[in-house]
Amino acid sequence: MDSYLKDGERLDEIGFGGLSIIQKPEEFCYGVDAVLLADFAKLKAGSKAIDLGTGTGIIPLILSYKTVDTELWGVEIQHSSWERSVRTAKLNGLTDRLHFICNDIKNAPDIFGLHTFDAVTTNPPYNGFESGLKNANMAKYISRHVTTATIEDFIAVASKLLRNQGDFYMIHRPSRLVDSFFYARAYSLEPKEIRFVAPKRNKTPNLVLIHCVKNGGSELKILDTLYVYKEKGGYTPELEKIYE
Amino acid sequence: MDSYLKDGERLDEIGFGGLSIIQKPEEFCYGVDAVLLADFAKLKAGSKAIDLGTGTGIIPLILSYKTVDTELWGVEIQHSSWERSVRTAKLNGLTDRLHFICNDIKNAPDIFGLHTFDAVTTNPPYNGFESGLKNANMAKYISRHVTTATIEDFIAVASKLLRNQGDFYMIHRPSRLVDSFFYARAYSLEPKEIRFVAPKRNKTPNLVLIHCVKNGGSELKILDTLYVYKEKGGYTPELEKIYE
Repeated sequence: MDSYLKDGERLDEIGFGGLSIIQKPEEFCYGVDAVLLADFAKLKAGSKAIDLGTGTGIIPLILSYKTVDTELWGVEIQHSSWERSVRTAKLNGLTDRLHFICNDIKNAPDIFGLHTFDAVTTNPPYNGFESGLKNANMAKYISRHVTTATIEDFIAVASKLLRNQGDFYMIHRPSRLVDSFFYARAYSLEPKEIRFVAPKRNKTPNLVLIHCVKNGGSELKILDTLYVYKEKGGYTPELEKIYE
Repeated sequence: MDSYLKDGERLDEIGFGGLSIIQKPEEFCYGVDAVLLADFAKLKAGSKAIDLGTGTGIIPLILSYKTVDTELWGVEIQHSSWERSVRTAKLNGLTDRLHFICNDIKNAPDIFGLHTFDAVTTNPPYNGFESGLKNANMAKYISRHVTTATIEDFIAVASKLLRNQGDFYMIHRPSRLVDSFFYARAYSLEPKEIRFVAPKRNKTPNLVLIHCVKNGGSELKILDTLYVYKEKGGYTPELEKIYE
């Protein structure tokens, strides 16, 4: 197994039927947000989905377990992350269902063609160009900051890739909800459901799951807030169920 | 006192220092949403504010109590409601601070001039042209349905009336949050804070308070959800405080 790993890398078991992922902790490790998004995204059996800015491919990897007969793609601009996602797919024996390309998400509509996917997922960088300290490590910095694509880019690309009535699933900061709604509406991805995620009860939400439908009607549903931790620590039963 | 009243009208004490309002129950009575909005709107001393679609003037009336030295205007298209608001202002001895005009809100920028208000409030009709049963009573129907002005109209008019950095306060249905955000951003009224209102804990929010700032920066804050009723009935302490 260890021959799959390069310098500084780690093989992490992620659950979900015994899947593993190759990560390099000094560059990037996936967080709870990716797991929440993969659970929030409901893919029909046999559907074709793509994850934009997939990093080391955690979202398609989890979706391969949670969905049936799906064809799952991921696009990542950082070569080192992409290369790890390809090895991870091999390692798990999933190369027939998991496909990763290394490219700018903005090129995806040219590569795949317009309206070719049933669903698009994305867990884009949360921080703006200006916010936060620059990570000394450039790979970590790119994965967390808007350096190569903005919220508008992610939404515009998703809209081009989706067929009519296709599903778009995004997780982002509540502080960016206006941007998310504004660009989603502007690019015909109508927000239909949102679910706030808060660390605990009586804490302000720090994440929001957004489900849009391409050319959907304008009516938004607010789902019950999802709490990550119990009052006295440890995951809530709902989180434990998401993690299996 | 009763000589102030016409057929079918009622004089309702509303609290807030002993204020009263003239209402005609078969046409329209104000609800908790107006009270919540009047509490949510923070007007600086000496500022000039206008309520769009003010009905019988409940929001400016409450604001006259909750704010200091403010000049408060209301615009209402329905003549019977407007006429009641004028009598209510006289009855409470507030004609120096409360001013009501009977007109289409869309004419307000021509009447008052551009960028002439520090704050705009609105509790617009929630229902679309198509939704809900038509109320047999036309006055009640107009007050609850989008017959004469849409969310876009209310927001466009508010933007014209507000000075730079002026405040816009609206209460609406969560199901219309995308429309609210989309048009607010489109008309330079940046949503800065929202507060969901739920009937009780563990109930889905059925109202949302929205605070926008004209030409404000794009960063949204989600305030703690406001619960109206306690588990076992009766207002929550926070609601009781809002009602005084």
